[in-house]
Amino acid sequence: MIERLAVGLISGTSLDGVDAALVRIGGPVERPSVRLLAFTTVPYPSAVRLRLLKVAGGEAVTSGDVSDLNFLLGELFAAAALRVCRQGGVAPKRLSVIGSHGQTIFHQGRSRPRSKLGEGRAAGGGGGTDRRQLASTLQIAEPAIIAARTCVPVVADFRTADMAAGGEGAPLVPLVDYLVLRDPKRNTIALNIGGIANITVIPAGALVEKVFGFDTGPGNIVMDGLVRHFTRGRESYDDNGRLAAQGKVIERLLGDLLRLAFFARRPPKSAGREQFGGALLERHFLSRRGTSFKDLVRTASELTARSIAEALQRFVFPRLALQAGRDRLVVSGGGAHNRLLVARLAELLPQLDVRLSDQYGLPADAKEAMAFAVLADRTMHGLPGNLPAVTGARRPVVLGKVSQP
Amino acid sequence: MIERLAVGLISGTSLDGVDAALVRIGGPVERPSVRLLAFTTVPYPSAVRLRLLKVAGGEAVTSGDVSDLNFLLGELFAAAALRVCRQGGVAPKRLSVIGSHGQTIFHQGRSRPRSKLGEGRAAGGGGGTDRRQLASTLQIAEPAIIAARTCVPVVADFRTADMAAGGEGAPLVPLVDYLVLRDPKRNTIALNIGGIANITVIPAGALVEKVFGFDTGPGNIVMDGLVRHFTRGRESYDDNGRLAAQGKVIERLLGDLLRLAFFARRPPKSAGREQFGGALLERHFLSRRGTSFKDLVRTASELTARSIAEALQRFVFPRLALQAGRDRLVVSGGGAHNRLLVARLAELLPQLDVRLSDQYGLPADAKEAMAFAVLADRTMHGLPGNLPAVTGARRPVVLGKVSQP
Repeated sequence: MIERLAVGLISGTSLDGVDAALVRIGGPVERPSVRLLAFTTVPYPSAVRLRLLKVAGGEAVTSGDVSDLNFLLGELFAAAALRVCRQGGVAPKRLSVIGSHGQTIFHQGRSRPRSKLGEGRAAGGGGGTDRRQLASTLQIAEPAIIAARTCVPVVADFRTADMAAGGEGAPLVPLVDYLVLRDPKRNTIALNIGGIANITVIPAGALVEKVFGFDTGPGNIVMDGLVRHFTRGRESYDDNGRLAAQGKVIERLLGDLLRLAFFARRPPKSAGREQFGGALLERHFLSRRGTSFKDLVRTASELTARSIAEALQRFVFPRLALQAGRDRLVVSGGGAHNRLLVARLAELLPQLDVRLSDQYGLPADAKEAMAFAVLADRTMHGLPGNLPAVTGARRPVVLGKVSQP
Repeated sequence: MIERLAVGLISGTSLDGVDAALVRIGGPVERPSVRLLAFTTVPYPSAVRLRLLKVAGGEAVTSGDVSDLNFLLGELFAAAALRVCRQGGVAPKRLSVIGSHGQTIFHQGRSRPRSKLGEGRAAGGGGGTDRRQLASTLQIAEPAIIAARTCVPVVADFRTADMAAGGEGAPLVPLVDYLVLRDPKRNTIALNIGGIANITVIPAGALVEKVFGFDTGPGNIVMDGLVRHFTRGRESYDDNGRLAAQGKVIERLLGDLLRLAFFARRPPKSAGREQFGGALLERHFLSRRGTSFKDLVRTASELTARSIAEALQRFVFPRLALQAGRDRLVVSGGGAHNRLLVARLAELLPQLDVRLSDQYGLPADAKEAMAFAVLADRTMHGLPGNLPAVTGARRPVVLGKVSQP
């Protein structure tokens, strides 16, 4: 298939800013070559980030606030797309498509009893009898704005079609992991440590139907939340795990956290700010007066490492024919820069060869944005982008909605 | 062009339920024939309507509430589409497209100073310096759900692309009015009286570029709000203007209302619940203790008639070569059933021949839903659907986002 240029845009659960990746896609659709030409992150202005924290944190807002942020983020995403094109020396009109994940402000992968949500909320459901909160997801950053500013077709809202087909709408990167990382002889586990951590399991030589994956739980979200809280927002993450390295694990707290119901749930499963955001931080960490900040960060770091390792031991290794020393754990996302965290993963998982995704043409920070460029390219070719074994959907579906410029 | 079947879906500002129109579209794209095969309205369950009133009324909610309603309304819109197909004896798989307007929960056609919005709201804008609230619009009723349940491609979110091009995102029906109602010899004014009233002006023999239109202000929204309030929700509208006919106009109140800034603003302009919803009702009507309910409804009815007539006299007649007795006012929307209102319009506008749109193959209740079927059909053919002279956009654009089933 002819080579084409595409941009992928995403802002993750950490609400830091917009990641933009410019890629060249070539080769057959079933085994595309994906090359990163440029990558940039455009941080959110602090006033925007504060508004997003409120909206995505479950605080009460008006529909006008959501609408306003949707259009405002559309402008910011468009600016990021234009910037990465400039950086890569590519005129935007040469792009075949922009894939925009948008900014998630709500994600509930499965329906759940409404009664858990507290009082004062109107009854939901068809006739007032259905007391469950539906599975639903909401991403913002208006694609019509991105299309108008760039003059490029935009695919966005990738999660809804999978959910309409009964899936959890996440994770969606696994298909791209499969397309780019599969190996005929080695089992490959792609681990992305963003706000949330998720894995894609690609058995050696497997057909796409055999790929599976799920969210393992927190990635950086708890650590970042602690650093932001204790530095009063001056710092936003634990650079290279330096703070954590000075603390020690609070075993009792770690034990409590590892017993959260999410970790025991069988995959497929997806997580977000709802499970591991501010509420968890308040309840388990900030309520402990007098505890050392560094010990809390160390415990959060260990929670991420242990929950990933235990998810692999419980739900992945029993399904793989492991081959000592050959199988790979390919780490990407912001957490790949946290040396302490990566080292702990290597200790906890001696049976795997731990590598960074950069080695495979997927720079850790850029990988997710690249993935949405590839997924948008598939949508424009009428190809499905979800993996039912990963999301729980009833069938593969074409993801996203297409906006013309 | 080959004949094709399409469904249009809309729920208006009155938040009553979902209108679904099944149409056959044929003839050349520039002069399509549009025939209504079936029409149905599926009322919202009362619990859903209460939630919508809250969300669309500017009350504080969480992003989870918006997300949940988006998916729930997707199911209700899908059910309405399937019902109108059943009613028309057409298998859904025979449809070429479904056009879903969705449910507007926020619409702000132009940016405005943020300071008007009250305190406690975080600063907006790119760097915290921009204190304006952006123009934005937000429709819900998840199209991916509609596509999945019907197995038909869905075009939705019609207003955003026009706004991204600098338009107010409304009204959008005028292009369809032009396609269906234009006449080589007679000036035609299409008036739709929904919650909000809007007009499309089609000068005799005009090219599409000469068509213009705008929202004139309240349609039924104020009358309906009064009836709901005073009957405690038992009734939702003034059937045939019977209540109003028993009241008399409160001239002073009417005068105050006709001096609202919206009416003096030059078109293009669009209105919604923000200008003429609950807040206006509270401030001007419900605050008048001891006033006869019927007098209030009569005054609201007169407000609608007078604001329409005055908008025509101020902003339309000066731009038309009127030909006494030939020019037409073609009335549609729920207000077309209000005999008192239509009679008052005929009295106030003796220079026009007042007709109901039913006469022209566009039944009053079904017209807006039919229009979104036609607009979706245009999007699928890559044709623009907005009229820049009507919405204020810088250029004609392809409207909506396409979701594949």
